[in-house]
This record gives sequence, structure tokens and C-alpha cells, in this order.
Amino acid sequence: MEKANVVIVGAGIGGVRAAQELAGKRNVHVTLLDRNNYQLFPPLLYQVSTATLATGEIAYPVREFFRSCRNVDFRLGEVTGVDVKAREVVTEHGRVPYDYLVLAAGSTTNFFGNEEVARHAFPMKTMEEALAIRNQLIRCLELAEQETDAARRKELLTFVCVGGGPTGVEEAGAISELIYQSMRKDYHHLDFSEVDIKLLEGTGRLLAMMPERLSRDAAARLAKKKVDVRLETMVTGYDGHTLMLKDGGEIKTQTVIWAAGVKAAPVAAALDADYDRAGRIVVNRDLSVRGVPRVYAIGDNASLEMEPGARPLATVAPVAMKEGICCARNILREVRGEETEPFVYKDMGAMATIGRSSAVLSVGKIHAEGFLAWSVWLWVHLLRLAGTYANVTVALKWVLNYFNNARLGRIIVER
Amino acid sequence: MEKANVVIVGAGIGGVRAAQELAGKRNVHVTLLDRNNYQLFPPLLYQVSTATLATGEIAYPVREFFRSCRNVDFRLGEVTGVDVKAREVVTEHGRVPYDYLVLAAGSTTNFFGNEEVARHAFPMKTMEEALAIRNQLIRCLELAEQETDAARRKELLTFVCVGGGPTGVEEAGAISELIYQSMRKDYHHLDFSEVDIKLLEGTGRLLAMMPERLSRDAAARLAKKKVDVRLETMVTGYDGHTLMLKDGGEIKTQTVIWAAGVKAAPVAAALDADYDRAGRIVVNRDLSVRGVPRVYAIGDNASLEMEPGARPLATVAPVAMKEGICCARNILREVRGEETEPFVYKDMGAMATIGRSSAVLSVGKIHAEGFLAWSVWLWVHLLRLAGTYANVTVALKWVLNYFNNARLGRIIVER
Repeated sequence: MEKANVVIVGAGIGGVRAAQELAGKRNVHVTLLDRNNYQLFPPLLYQVSTATLATGEIAYPVREFFRSCRNVDFRLGEVTGVDVKAREVVTEHGRVPYDYLVLAAGSTTNFFGNEEVARHAFPMKTMEEALAIRNQLIRCLELAEQETDAARRKELLTFVCVGGGPTGVEEAGAISELIYQSMRKDYHHLDFSEVDIKLLEGTGRLLAMMPERLSRDAAARLAKKKVDVRLETMVTGYDGHTLMLKDGGEIKTQTVIWAAGVKAAPVAAALDADYDRAGRIVVNRDLSVRGVPRVYAIGDNASLEMEPGARPLATVAPVAMKEGICCARNILREVRGEETEPFVYKDMGAMATIGRSSAVLSVGKIHAEGFLAWSVWLWVHLLRLAGTYANVTVALKWVLNYFNNARLGRIIVER
Repeated sequence: MEKANVVIVGAGIGGVRAAQELAGKRNVHVTLLDRNNYQLFPPLLYQVSTATLATGEIAYPVREFFRSCRNVDFRLGEVTGVDVKAREVVTEHGRVPYDYLVLAAGSTTNFFGNEEVARHAFPMKTMEEALAIRNQLIRCLELAEQETDAARRKELLTFVCVGGGPTGVEEAGAISELIYQSMRKDYHHLDFSEVDIKLLEGTGRLLAMMPERLSRDAAARLAKKKVDVRLETMVTGYDGHTLMLKDGGEIKTQTVIWAAGVKAAPVAAALDADYDRAGRIVVNRDLSVRGVPRVYAIGDNASLEMEPGARPLATVAPVAMKEGICCARNILREVRGEETEPFVYKDMGAMATIGRSSAVLSVGKIHAEGFLAWSVWLWVHLLRLAGTYANVTVALKWVLNYFNNARLGRIIVER
């Protein structure tokens, strides 16, 4: 029997889930493409960037998922484009023909066209970027202890996170704990009152997807952790030393972590389709791309309104995972000549941690904060992690971290 | 009371041990200098390079050792020289005055002046170098599976280790297990009979420091692991694709791991002292440098003959550790105006693993090989690792690896 070639671009949470759904199915052959040989678990990147977790704990080898699935192949390489007419995906190592294509390439940092900021700020979407931030945080403290010039020392000890979404909130909280709790004892000659951690948000509140009350609660919890939260604050430029604000203000700092926005990975733009402002492909209810037969888009590459005019689904792990399953099943239906079915999704709510044992959580009508919310966050993320070993060590590290602020990854490793 | 300033160059096994010996002593203040903020445990670097261990498991934050030792300060930075007249150590961040100096800067890869080989071969002395090897090993398999040209595929699947000392032997054995046992199932379309792992040694036997019988045994064990061991084989050049041999032979490969020699770190050369061929400083029996008052050299920076004309002590962890203790105590004696005492050392023998559950061991008259030797190797290294957490996870990983060849670090991460 002639097998249909399904090519999946991106071995992220959505892409791998789609491939798993197609694994072992006799009438399809799957080729999974990614420039990394691992599946990254982005929700915990901030813990790598703050020396809590190791790279191997949030990255799982893609081939490990499909060792015994003969109908799923992985190919390492950058995808540079899609040739819809020829039905081929263009990669740095040649072309890969497809009968059905799934775009699950994820997203990249959005600097909104500000080249100067892009050059000097630290994005946090990839493993390499998280490690670069970790190295920077530690190096700043190391150099600050040796720095005799007060102004330069202040610049080294000022850490700015831009963007009040979950990433910015979690990163700011984690940096606060890394420095004030874990590293305080490390530096005998550093005056930690000189440390200044700021979180800048352009709108009037943090965590826009949450109810007002939780946004205020998150801000209060960050303040308790000595994080200077500034709302209604827009960044206009950054030269590596001076962060320029729209209100004319300046912040002297060598560390600006940019969590202010994301956009779909460039490859998503390869189609002749409708896009939203973040470069995401507007998809039909069955996740297929409008006007481009046999092509599906999921996760951060897809913009789906569950009701006409409604806010598109959030680009979060649970959505990507369920969209992976749905598009895989629809492809199987197409192969069998059946009708595709619309994507159904029950919003599981949103949550964000604000450092150890503190979080905010919003599930339907249930709102929670503090230790309870944190415990839920902990379990949800622990169980979502790929790899039993990681489940064990991550749990172990979180326990150690909870009881004695252990940050075992406090090392600077770079090429 | 005026404290004596002790500056220790290098936070390796010897330098940290010396600092620990001086920690809490009321009449000395210690400044520990290193370009890395962690202490590396080199004997297990090969396990990072072959995806068994994570970076954090063989690197321990230096400051963690001295959190509660107010008289020990750490300074991150490259040491560029020593000004003996001014009694100052020159670093990239300025000068550090000393009353007593300990050179414990360790060693670096020795390419014996062959620039071409230095440019294209992979050394394995630092964490970054071990990660580069790990990335290379995985990338070669990834590209080989996509490579249709047989010659180029062969080049990708040929892995050469140069140097038949412990490092080369352990690396070759570990690569064999990584590829033949852990990764075989990962690649559905790769013909593993095309894989070729070679170990080249210039002299007539492996593990020169061991008795002949164990050298032969090691070679036999590597052969069982499909490692092509070539003795009396000298490398003359390597351009990144073709390895040139002295006998006129050639080996096509994109991966040459250079474990053929080490030399003392450049900073050791800063003194006006006697040096051996490997750039190590010839020291007195009390570890002080001949003709340079108040300066000591230990570990890979020291060349010490226990009897006149005898072979200098091996540059191994146990020697460095004991020398660290000895020079620290001699410095305290000098501070108190007492006589220094000579270094005494009981050779604990040598050992090397040849992959999982296989090793050779030589302690005095006792020679052992196979599982027994491997178990001893395991415990010795496990207990020497800094950090309880690492002891636990490393033990856990070794058990997993022993039972199901788990290599959890099979990910390519690079800047």
C-alpha cells in the first residue's frame, strides 16, 4: 500500500505530539524536521537561565521518542522554506517531499523592529539564549565584586526584565531568588543593597490573560521579592549600557532580558496565506491552512478563533499539544478520504510562578495564589516534562531548592 | 595581627585543596584566582563528551566551597603573568599582590607545535571542549544518516582518538558504547557496520604507566568493543578531512580527538625557574620553586622527582590533592618562621575504564581487570566528586547507563 508522506516542521511540543499520534499508523510515513535534535520544554527555560535546572532536564532527544517507530524519521537541519507547488519542504540539507505538511515551527523573539535592542538585549526562547543569560547573571556578580567604580558596579548589579507576561514575571522572580537567596553568601565583599532588579511592562498590568486581582497579587509578590515593577513603561532603545524609556527616563544596566513579545518562526511566512499581527497563520477550525491544501499549522504557528471575532487561542503548551493530536487525526481522515473534524479545546486556565512557593493560578472561575497555586504549577510542569529521569531529578532539585535555595547550576560555561 | 596574603592561581583539584587547608587560619588571607567560576573534575570529562554526564555534575562552583570561609576570596579572571619583583600576580582585571604564591594552574593540550592539527583536531581539557566533542559525535551521526555519498558518509562515521593514555583509552571505549549501544536504535536508516572507531598510539603499548599485561588486556578489551587500536602510529598532519600518518598512511575522518599530550598552563612559564619538557616547574622536595622565594608549584604545574633521577610524579588528581595540602602547610610554617617539610606521597597506583563494567587497575603489586577493577574505579571517582547532589545523580546515571545504556545527554547545545 502506498504510504502518505507526512512532513512535520518543528519537533516542539506540538510537532512531537502530532508525530506520536501518527506513529505506527500503517498508511502514513512521518518525517520530523528540526534544527535541534531535542524537544525543548520552554515553560522551564527560565529555570535554566537562573541556574536551577540543567539543559538535559528540559531538553529530550527527539529520536528517543521514536526509537521503535519505524514509520517516523527525524532529520536534523534548518528548514528554509516551503515549495507549495512542488509539495516540498526546503532544508539546508536538500528538499523533502510531502503529501501532507504540518507547520509546528514554534515562535521566536519579537523585538518589534528595534535593531539596537535586538543587538544588545538577551532574548530567552532557545537553550543557548537561556545559558547566555545564566552566564551573564553570574558574570555580572563576579565582576561587580571586583569593581571599585561605584557607577560601573551599579550598572553590573542592575538587572532588567522587559515584558510583564508569564516569562517576564517568572524570570524576574527567579533572578531575585537566585541573587538574594542563593548567591548572597557566595560573595563576601558585595553589598547586596546595590542590587536592583526591575520588571518593565508597557500596559497597565502584569499577566494580561489573568483576572485583575491576580495581576495585582503577582505585582505585590514580586515587590516582596525586591523586584521593582514598573507598569506603563515602554522601552525605546538600548545600547548595552543605557536603557532608554519612552517617558524620557534612562536605566543604566548591562543586562536587559527581553520577554516583551514573540512572533511565529520565519518559515511560517513561506505560505501564501492569511497572517495575524504576530506572523501566525490564520487556520480553519480543523487547523488546515486557508487556501493551501494539505497544509496544517499548529501551536505558535497557528492563529485560531474558536468563535468568529474571539481572541485567538493562546500560544501555550496545552493548546499546542491538543492541536498536534487534532491535526494528526485530520490528516489520517484525509488519507482515508473522510471529512476532517474541527478542533475542540477546553481552556485549562493560566498560571505563573513568582519564585519559590509562590504563584498565581486562574482556572475557569477558580482563582488561587501563593503556595497552593505553586504546588499545582509544580505538578503540572513536572508531569509534562518528557523523560522519567528528568521527572525524578527535577523534582529532587525543586525540593533541594525549596529547602536550602540550592542552585547547583551556578557555573559559567561558554564556547 | 598582619595577615600574610596567599594567592593561589588555579581553582582546580590542587588549588582548591590548598585553599581549604588555609581556610579559617587566622594568620593568612587567601585569594583564589581562576578564569572559570567552577572547579572541574577532569577525570570524568570524557563522560560529558560522550553524553553520559551533565556539565553541572563534574563542575562545582568554587564559591560554594568557601561560603563560610571569610579569609578565602575568589576572583574570576584570566591570570596573564607573575611579577616576581613586585610580588604581584597580573590578571585581566588588574594586579593582585601576594606574600606567598601557589601556582596550580593545571595543564593544557599539547599539540607539539603542529598548528594544522591544533586547528582541526578536538582537544579535551576543558568543559567547552568536551561539549564540542559531544556535539560533533551526534552531528556526525545525524548528517551521516542523510548523506547519500558513501565516501562522505564514511568520513562522517570515522572517529579517531589520538593518544593511548588513560584519556584516549577511556574516550575510545566510551565512544564505542555511545554509538554501538546507546545510539544504534536511534537511527533507523544508518548502517552501523560503516562506523569506524580508531585509537592511535605512537609507542608500542597503551597505558604506559601500567604493567605490560594490563596494557595488552586494555587493547584486547577495546578490540572487543570494535575499537581499531593501532600502536606505533604517529600523526603528522590533519586538515579536517584527512589524517596523515608518519608511515605514509591516511585516514579520512571529520573527527580527530587529540589526547596525545598535555603541557603546563602558559602562566607557569612566567617564572625564572627550571622547567621540564612539558613546561612543568622543577620544584624542591617541599614543593617550593627553586630560586624563587615564597612561590610554590603543585599538580600539573610541578615537576617533582621523589628520588634523584627518578620519573617525576604523575600529573593525576591524587598527587595534586596531596600537594595542595603539603604546600599549604609549608606556607603556614613559613609564616610562623618554621622550617618547611618535604612532600611525602604513597603512590595509589593507576586505573583506566574501558567502557561500562570494564577497567584495568594497578595498585602496587595488585593488578586487576574487568568488573572488579571497574567497580573500584567507580567508587573512587564517585567519592572524589565534589557535591553530594552530584554524587547521587552521577551514581544514578551510572546505574541507568549500566542497565539500559541510557545516555541522557544526547543533545546538541551550542552558542
